[in-house]
Formats: sequence, structure tokens, C-alpha cells
Amino acid sequence: MSTDGRHDLRHHGDTEVGGGLTDLAVNVRAGTPPPWLRSLLATALTGLAAYPDGRAAHAAVARRHRRPVEEVLLTAGAAEAFVLLARILRPRRAVVVHPQFTEPEAALRDAGHTVERLILRPEDGFRLDPAAVPADADLVVIGNPTNPTSVLHPAADLAALARPGRVLVVDEAFADTVPGEAESLAGRGDLPGLVVLRSLTKTWGLAGLRIGYVLAPPRLIAALSTAQPLWPVSTPALVAAEACSSPAALAEAEAAARATAEDRAYLLSRLGELPSILTYGQPAASFVLIRMPDATGVRERLRHTGFAVRRGDTFPGLGPDWLRIAVRGRATLDAFCEALTALLL
Amino acid sequence: MSTDGRHDLRHHGDTEVGGGLTDLAVNVRAGTPPPWLRSLLATALTGLAAYPDGRAAHAAVARRHRRPVEEVLLTAGAAEAFVLLARILRPRRAVVVHPQFTEPEAALRDAGHTVERLILRPEDGFRLDPAAVPADADLVVIGNPTNPTSVLHPAADLAALARPGRVLVVDEAFADTVPGEAESLAGRGDLPGLVVLRSLTKTWGLAGLRIGYVLAPPRLIAALSTAQPLWPVSTPALVAAEACSSPAALAEAEAAARATAEDRAYLLSRLGELPSILTYGQPAASFVLIRMPDATGVRERLRHTGFAVRRGDTFPGLGPDWLRIAVRGRATLDAFCEALTALLL
Repeated sequence: MSTDGRHDLRHHGDTEVGGGLTDLAVNVRAGTPPPWLRSLLATALTGLAAYPDGRAAHAAVARRHRRPVEEVLLTAGAAEAFVLLARILRPRRAVVVHPQFTEPEAALRDAGHTVERLILRPEDGFRLDPAAVPADADLVVIGNPTNPTSVLHPAADLAALARPGRVLVVDEAFADTVPGEAESLAGRGDLPGLVVLRSLTKTWGLAGLRIGYVLAPPRLIAALSTAQPLWPVSTPALVAAEACSSPAALAEAEAAARATAEDRAYLLSRLGELPSILTYGQPAASFVLIRMPDATGVRERLRHTGFAVRRGDTFPGLGPDWLRIAVRGRATLDAFCEALTALLL
Repeated sequence: MSTDGRHDLRHHGDTEVGGGLTDLAVNVRAGTPPPWLRSLLATALTGLAAYPDGRAAHAAVARRHRRPVEEVLLTAGAAEAFVLLARILRPRRAVVVHPQFTEPEAALRDAGHTVERLILRPEDGFRLDPAAVPADADLVVIGNPTNPTSVLHPAADLAALARPGRVLVVDEAFADTVPGEAESLAGRGDLPGLVVLRSLTKTWGLAGLRIGYVLAPPRLIAALSTAQPLWPVSTPALVAAEACSSPAALAEAEAAARATAEDRAYLLSRLGELPSILTYGQPAASFVLIRMPDATGVRERLRHTGFAVRRGDTFPGLGPDWLRIAVRGRATLDAFCEALTALLL
């Protein structure tokens, strides 16, 4: 289906876990959803007989980002947003910046669009040179921070890509794993054609609930909305969207992001002790991308010792010598690094 | 947006309730979801950090209808199925049988298709003459039992509409409100181009959860699936789909359908005492459609006495003299009929 012959664009990390393996493959925060959120969702179950009413959640998300409600669309996860964009846009020249999450390209291809790739290089620390984006590209898709490279592009570099006649899609599914949501463009309603995608999946452990949202100019939001089915977001997902937009929830997310940054630094220092492992650029999100000889074999052997990590070879621009590792707490990282060390030394 | 100039095709009964009104406007079974189902869904909330895995639910639904899994697609409510059908089909002549749920036509129009209407007449008891369907229609959409007429078409009449080169969509969202699921085509995998849509919303009180499914030939299921976003159905919705396909759940649904049939007969007998109210055909689902002078005014006055009923004028083929009333338990029906009687006599 969605393959370019070399990469399975529809491979996702969730198929690599299970069977009692310690999960460092899926980038969802451990210990989530938190108990207060589970309680709130349980309360919502008594109201399921009513059709979803998204107004309160819609208003809460708009308030959280200081955007008018006309610039906000709630979706059944960011995945729905990619399909809606592919459905309503008619790009003449669509450019997807890789390596990145493969679903945007898969959705564009499935909808019949031609997609060009701009592949960032590890030697450059996966940094984007804005001048490398074709001037006549009328659709540009990029992740920030980017999955799987964990690289955070400067907001100014991305803002420079926005222009009349172009839709600039910035996938910020991991933006809330960065302290202060640094380099986020979520508040930039002033940039022409800017579409920011957000997710509640990673920080809040709601992958199973399907909730995300789009921030974009009113005209685009209206068009995306027309392509949605009736009642696109479930009542529990709406409850979560409203709750996770509260000041208390944002403070909790910020604390989690800071803890993740510390744990990531620890993971990188441990990995740095192993001479055969390379990293590129400055990881900024809740995962790190590493390069090593025979990564495919290492990944298989890690599974035998009880650890699941994400293969890198399904991402355009990477290959069989790459692995993506989710940042976990110290104890898990220690156990993982010991297992990895035992395999390599 | 989706209007033909006379009917607001995107009006739905859920906007008519609230404000403490007793709800006879929305066709969801009262007292739902049942406690056992709420408990099960609450348990599922602990697993939300994982991405949805639809395999068990998919298999359970296929088993329940004795269809191969290749002939089953789980959707975020029947509403998603209408959008998916509108997206993948390229009908040359699409015919929607009215009066019926307006979402199929709205989704087809939103996707740019031209839609013809075959309007059944109250004088005929809203019965379908299969010969009235144009022979060259390559897409035919009909509800069974039909919302809002409550009429149940004979399975043989609908089966006679199926033929190679035509997609026949039978919306069976209310089929499980009919004892024995009489006249359902859900098991007819042998009929060419037959697409049956089912919902768990009405019997199980899961309008807020967004869960339904499609039964169709494997080729159509595969095409619909490609148009879906990744992870289209949430984990709680999958849990519900599996649980509501169990023999115990089917027995509970059957008992509810029989109780509904008794309550409906009681409602009809009470309404029959009022000379100004007409019904047409034989109601078979969890609601009845009535015709009366000044129904719009009566509906407004009912709201002042605390009862919400569904306006009929947004359905093509009906007008301002129609109302749809959900079947409820005796006590609610008694209170409603007394309020109605006081208004009319």
C-alpha cells in the first residue's frame, strides 16, 4: 500500500512491543494516563448515551493557545488530521522533509498526490537549510521536534518557510515534550498558511483514545471540518482535550518535559560510553536516534533480553544501522543500557 | 453547507435536547450504557497509553455475523462509514431513498457527488416499490428499519435491488432494535455489492464513543479501509464492539428489542386516542413518526411542558406537520401522552 519500494511507510512502533518486553519503542510517556485523568474519563463514561458535544473542549484548546476558536479543529488523533489535509489540499508541488513520521507522506500518497522528499543528512545534524526547500513548493510538511531524529528546528527557520500560496504543515506532536514548548509555532496565527498539528498522545498516554487538534487559518479549518465525519471526536477524547488544556495540566506536562530532558541527558551519557554508538544533532524530544553497526541484529538480540526498541530502517533517509530509543526513567534506562552493553562489549 | 435549500440535512436530534427536557428526540435506548458495559470500559482506561489494536473486536464482530473478517470494517460510528463510502465510490447515478437519515446524502454531496432522491409516500405506508429504483442506478442507499419512518422493508425487496455493477447500501443502524433482527441483510455475504452499516449507538447507549461497522465484499472493505486514518477506532470503542458481540450481549439486546416493541405498541395505542394524530405504515423500530396539524407549534409547546421530540421537517419527503417520537418506558410515555393530550384537547 504505502511503500516507496524501500520503506514501509505504514510501519509503526506499536507493532514492535508486547510479549512482556520493556517498551522503549513507542514514544508514549510511561505511567500514563495519570490517575486524575483516568478518574475524569471514568466519570465521562456515564454520559456516553449522548452524542459528543465538542464546544467546551474546542474553546479550552483555543484558550490554551490564545487562538480564536475559528482557528482550531479537534481531530481523532493527529493521524486523522493528515488524512483530512491530504483530502482537501490540491498541491502542485508537495515536499515532505525527511527523516520524519511517515504518516503524512503515506496519507498524501493514498490520496493520489505526488510527494517529493527533502532528506536532511546526519552529517548536518539533521538541520534544515530553509533555502533547500523549493521556492515553488505549495505544500511543505515538517516535524518539530522531529520524529525520529529528535531534532528541534529553530522557530525562526520554520517561520521563514511560511508564505502566501503555500501551506506549511508543522507536526508538533512532540512539542509538549520540550520544556517551555520551545520553538513551537502554535501561537503564530499571523503566519500565512501555517498548519500546526498537536497531539495529546505522548505526554498524556492517550494513544488509545484518538485525540489531537489542528491550529490553522479559519479558511483551512473550515475546509478540514467539512471533510470530517459527523461527531468526529468521542466524548472521552473531548473530556481529555479540555482537561489537558487546563493550567494545572500544562504545569504537569512542563514538569514531565523537564524530567524527560534530564533522563534523556542521562541516556545520552550512558550511550556515550559505548564507542560503537553515534548520535547526530542535539536530541530535544522524548526519544533519541542512534546509529550503530548491525543495528538490526542488535535490535533482535535486545528483544531476546527483554527490550523493544524502534527500528530505524522504515524511515526515508535512514537505514538498517539506525535505532530509535524512547526516553524512560533512570531504572529502566540503567537496565536497558546494561543489556545493550553486554551485547556490544 | 449540506442543504438542498429546503432541508437542513445536517440537523440532528441531539441539538433538540438538554436544558432538563425529557428526551424523546434522540433514538438512544434509555438507561444506557448498562452498568456492566460501563465497568468494562472503565477497565479499558488503564490501557489507553497503547495504540488501539482492533484485531479482537474485528474478529468478534465477524463471528457475530458469521462473516469472514475480510468482509468487516470497524468505523468511528456509522457516520464515518458514510464519509468513507462517499470518498471511495464514483457513482454515475446515486439514488437515496427518502425520507431517511440525512447523513448519507450530506456526505455524498460534500464529496461532490450528485444525488437523486426516491421519495416514498405516506399514503403508501412509506413502502418501497423495488421497481421504482432506476435500473441504471449504480449506488442505492436505503435504511432498514428506516429513520425516521420506523418502517421495516422486507429483506427480499431489498435483496432484489442488489446486482453486479451496483453498490447497495443498507443502513441498519436500528436493526438491533427489531426483535430477531428481522429483515436484516447483515448475513447476506452472497449478494453482490451489498454494504450493510451497523451501529452500537442506539441499543448500547454509545453515541459518545463513536463505534459502528461495515459488512461488505472484501474488495469494498479494502478500499474503505485505505480511506480511513491510522488507528480509526479508539480502544474503548473496540472494547465495546467486542463485548456487544457476545452471546450474552445479543440476548440482552434481544430482550430490549422485545420490550421496545411492547412500549411502542402502548405508545401507538395512546396516540390513537387522539383524533388529530396520524401514523403511516407499521412502525418497527425504537421510534414512531406522526403527522398532525401544526406539529411545529405542538413541538414548541411540548418543550415548555418539559418534553423534547424530534422535528420532522428536516427530512426530505416530510414537512412541518411531522414529528418523530422515541419509544421510552411506560412511565415516561404516560407523562408524555398526558402532556400532549392536554395541549390538543
